[in-house]
Order: sequence, then structure tokens, then C-alpha cells
Amino acid sequence: MTDTAQGTSRRYGTRPTMKDVAARAGVGLKTVSRVVNGEPGVTPDTERRVQEAITALGFRRNDSARILRKGRTASIGLVLEDLADPFYGPLSRAVEEVARDHGALLINGSSAEDPDREQELVLALCARRVDGLVVIPAGDDHRYLEPEIAAGIATVFVDRPAGRIDADVVLSDSFGGAQEAVAHLIAHGHRRIGFIGDQPRIHTAKERLRGYRTAMAAAGLPVDESWVTLGSTAPEHVRAAATAMLDGPEPVTALFAGNNRVTVTAVRVLRERPRPVALVGFDDFELADLVRPAITVVAQDAARLGRTAAGLLFRRLDGIDEPPRRVEIPTRLIARGSGEIRP
Amino acid sequence: MTDTAQGTSRRYGTRPTMKDVAARAGVGLKTVSRVVNGEPGVTPDTERRVQEAITALGFRRNDSARILRKGRTASIGLVLEDLADPFYGPLSRAVEEVARDHGALLINGSSAEDPDREQELVLALCARRVDGLVVIPAGDDHRYLEPEIAAGIATVFVDRPAGRIDADVVLSDSFGGAQEAVAHLIAHGHRRIGFIGDQPRIHTAKERLRGYRTAMAAAGLPVDESWVTLGSTAPEHVRAAATAMLDGPEPVTALFAGNNRVTVTAVRVLRERPRPVALVGFDDFELADLVRPAITVVAQDAARLGRTAAGLLFRRLDGIDEPPRRVEIPTRLIARGSGEIRP
Repeated sequence: MTDTAQGTSRRYGTRPTMKDVAARAGVGLKTVSRVVNGEPGVTPDTERRVQEAITALGFRRNDSARILRKGRTASIGLVLEDLADPFYGPLSRAVEEVARDHGALLINGSSAEDPDREQELVLALCARRVDGLVVIPAGDDHRYLEPEIAAGIATVFVDRPAGRIDADVVLSDSFGGAQEAVAHLIAHGHRRIGFIGDQPRIHTAKERLRGYRTAMAAAGLPVDESWVTLGSTAPEHVRAAATAMLDGPEPVTALFAGNNRVTVTAVRVLRERPRPVALVGFDDFELADLVRPAITVVAQDAARLGRTAAGLLFRRLDGIDEPPRRVEIPTRLIARGSGEIRP
Repeated sequence: MTDTAQGTSRRYGTRPTMKDVAARAGVGLKTVSRVVNGEPGVTPDTERRVQEAITALGFRRNDSARILRKGRTASIGLVLEDLADPFYGPLSRAVEEVARDHGALLINGSSAEDPDREQELVLALCARRVDGLVVIPAGDDHRYLEPEIAAGIATVFVDRPAGRIDADVVLSDSFGGAQEAVAHLIAHGHRRIGFIGDQPRIHTAKERLRGYRTAMAAAGLPVDESWVTLGSTAPEHVRAAATAMLDGPEPVTALFAGNNRVTVTAVRVLRERPRPVALVGFDDFELADLVRPAITVVAQDAARLGRTAAGLLFRRLDGIDEPPRRVEIPTRLIARGSGEIRP
């Protein structure tokens, strides 16, 4: 049997051990261990025999064992909540770039908006000995992380704060941005403005709703509860919510969309309407300036969120011990046309 | 000192060990080990004392050690090449859904188009004992994976084939899709058609170029080499390439864009031109139907690519031993306006 055929027959089989290497090289286990770990006390000839056996068997040192001994693995974890939301693309890439600048690998995972999944993933990354974590939380109770943090796993939350624990967090100014968006629509003559946001348990959805209500109240405008919908951002749900607000007894003349997933569906709904309806979306998105009318947005700086969170994490990993920080990144209103349509 | 203060003072410090638990509970190390691993031979009272010590100290069993013993960790890895390319969103999510259906976690990482980074990341995931890998390769030599595959780590490549090893691969029909795109432009009267594609070392870029050349040749049309540019898909590069083709001595009347990153920049360039230029893009993208003119694309089924790759991976993990497979997923031309503009 040739070595190649042997390799094929072991495909998806069991991993060769140091014992297999020792047997093939005709040496003791301790000798193999010395060669594998670069320790002294092995003659060049023996070392060559062991190396040949390692190559022939395809032996690889078990890094789980090495991680156990060494502690630091030069890797950090990032837990997202939706792999398909483009908002997280630049955020993830920024975290990755900071990690790379620090010589660390980035390992990601997604909770798919499921708090149990988030916990499972976070603990799985901890068990795989990441040095630290950047978490966009799906859940609102992170006490399960306390033993990990106590044991030295640095943790920074981003986009949404941690629940029931005190940890570093980097947020966009959702409240201020929403307030500015709605004030912008009011300044363009709107009195009946609808808000479609994400699930009400999500911090950013609550904050944007609070910004909406505050801006309406500041202008002395009443809010009809049929103008507010929080829930799934799936297209069919957003479509139903927008249609109800536009066709209801007190029809809105403008919409404030709570995130880019909502905005994209709102754009589709509004272009089917007989008359123009104003729209401001929270989050910028690719091509927002190329659709007609171009979409007025409250832009978040997703890359800066990621960069800032990763920066805080590496400060912790560098041993800087200070109370948990809360950093807020400002948003920016970009007027492009859709938010300047008059009632 | 209260337990809370103790927890705070150990923040980012060292992980408590079984020895610490044993000391606090006033029992031997072996007893702690029995409790932690659910082994028999411990009285209820002793077990309670050990559990209290575990809680007080925030001790967590070291899962690296457990992984060493158990083998399978019910997790798979996905290596992407660009976190910010929206094409990978639905692909990643599809892999994640299949993983979840199999009770496995998905751990991701990105090579950022760097072959060295890809290797580092793949080996880091292997060292963390994923059961299998789905890889969108950045490099073209994957012999470094041979020992891992031989040791039982199932590996499936997607979007681009493996280099210099024989492994499962799931691809879009880049050649056929490109041929159809260019034939579509020719059918609408174009004779001078430009092609802007990704780096020439990338398999999909080469295949799409081959499709372009084949369609031109099949129609008896010469290709002026100033009409073909392969390279970075960064906006400034695509802008320069498109402008050169449109302003050159043999100006093109239509563009075929090699992927969604190219198409999005091409849309921006073309809307600044005095007269309409036809455009077909490889890859569909969100809002392609909402810009004016709407963009004609050759759509890839990214979710199906991911689902198929993950399906093959779990077949391997279920022990199905068959020769490596190559699966090709068809593309679909969607005519929306930009590709039907006449010269």
C-alpha cells in the first residue's frame, strides 16, 4: 500500500496520535513529545526519523492541548445577530482589521436573533479559548457571562448594551438620530408620521421609538397609536404595517423606518402608491442615493462602531483595568430627496 | 470582602482551577473532578459543598480539556473571503441553517482575500476542533489541508474550487452565466462590449472572462484588449477601467460587470455619462430592480450554494465515504432594462 492510498483510506477516519508516530519511528513517546514541542535532548538522527514518521502519518500536534498549556491563543470572537443584514458587514470588517493590527484572528458567529443561540455561541467561543469577545447581543440577560469575564475573557458589547451585567458598550445615538429624523419630517410640513421599527425587546428599536415620540411631543403633535408598529422586519410584515398606516382612517403622509431592513421594504411599498409619501430611514445603505427619489437617511457609522468596540477590547486585553465604559457614536442625517417630500 | 467585590477584583484576572474549588470545599481534587464530570462516588452533602464552591468561585470546566476527550464538538467552520460583500450574507445564513438543523454551531472567519490569512484561519479552526469546514478559498494551493482532511476534518469548498487537492466543491456556473450575459448584449445589437472582472487569480473571474470571450467568438466578434480589465474591484479601480473603455479609441457601447462589487460602481459611473450605456452584471443585488434603469443581472443562487455545500459536508460527517464531488449550480439571467439598451 502506498502512502497516498493509506491517506485516502484514513480520510475522515481517526487522527494519528503521538503513539502512532513513536511506533513508526521506533522511539519512545517522550522522544516524540520532545521533537513536537521543540525541546532539547534528541539526536539529529532520531529527530529526522520522528519527523519522517510525522510526515508519513500526517500527524498534527493537538492544539487543544497546546492551548491548555499556553493560555493566550491570539484570537477574539465576534457574535453578530444576523449574517444577512448588510449593516454588520462594515462593522465586522472593522473589528477584523483591528484584530489583525493586534496580531489576532477574528472568529465570528451569529445568534440569528435567538438569545439561547447567543449564549450557546458565546460559551462555545469561550470554551475554544478566545481572549475576548465583541458581542451584538440578541438577549437581554448576560449574567451567564459573569464567570467568563471573571475568568479573564474581556467582553465589549456593541450596537446594543449588555443586560443585567456591567460591561463596556459602544452604541449609536439611536435616540438622538431618531429625534432628528422625525423633526426633519415635521420641518417639511408633516403632522401625521408613521414609525415602523424592529422587535420592541431590542434596545435600538426602543430608543428610536423614544426619539420619535419625543420629536412629536416637542412639536406639540399627537401620536395616533395606529401610526406605530414594532415587530418583525420581514418584508411581508413591514408591507402590511406600511399599508395599514397609509390606508387607515388617519393616513400618515410620511414614514420613519427604524432600520435598513424596514427602509428597503418601505421603498418598495411607496413606489406602488399613487402619490408620493415622504420617507426617512435609520441606517444608510448601498444605493440609497441611486433609487428615485433618493432616500434620506440617518446614517450610522458602522465601521466606527466596530473599530471603537475592538479598540476597547484590546485595551482590556492589554491589561488596562478601568470601570466599564459606554461610548456613544453620533449619527448623521443625510438629506437626499425622500425626506424632503411635502405632504 | 463580599463575593461581588471578589468577582470584580478578579475581573480579567486568572481563571479559578479545580484546585481552588477543592480548597474552598475542603475536599480532594479527585472529588471535585467526579462532581464536575458527573461521575458516581460522591455523597449528596459533599456534592452540594463542591457545587457551592464552584458557584462562589465562578469555576467553569475547561472545555478544551473536554474537547480533547470527547472528539466531536458539534461545530463547523466557514471561511469567507470578504465580510463586507453582500453576496456572502445569504450563503452564510444558509450554511448556518443547515448546521442548526444538524445540531451544530457555525463558526466563521474571513481571509480578507489573503491566502496566508486563509491558511492561518483554517488551521486555527481545525485546532479548535471543528468537525468540518466550508471554505471559500482565497488561495490556490490547499495542500496544507491534507493532514487535517486525513485526520478526519471534512472539508467542502464553495464558490471557488480547491487548489492542488481533491475535495468536494460547489460552484455557480460562472462560464455559462457569463456566456449568456454577453450573448444577451450581442442579441441587443452590441458589438463592442467591455468586461470588468475581479483579480485574474480568482477562479470565478477567469471563468467569467472565458464566458465573455467564448460568446464574443461565437458571434464572430473581435475583442480589443482595451475592453478587458481584471483586477481589484475597489470603486476607484472600476471607475478608471470603465471610463477608459468608454472614452477609448474603440469605445464600448455595453459593459459586462464581473460581480456585484463591480456592478454597483458601474451603475454610478454610467449615470454620469451623457448617453445610455448597456450594462449586465454578474450577481443579483438588493435594489437592482429599483434603480433606473433597473439592472439586468445573471443571478447566482447564493443560498443554494451554501445549502448544497453544507449538505455535502454533513453527508461526509455522517460517514458517507465517496469520491470528492463537484456540483454546479445554474445561474439565471434576469432582464430588467439596463441590459436591453441598444447601442
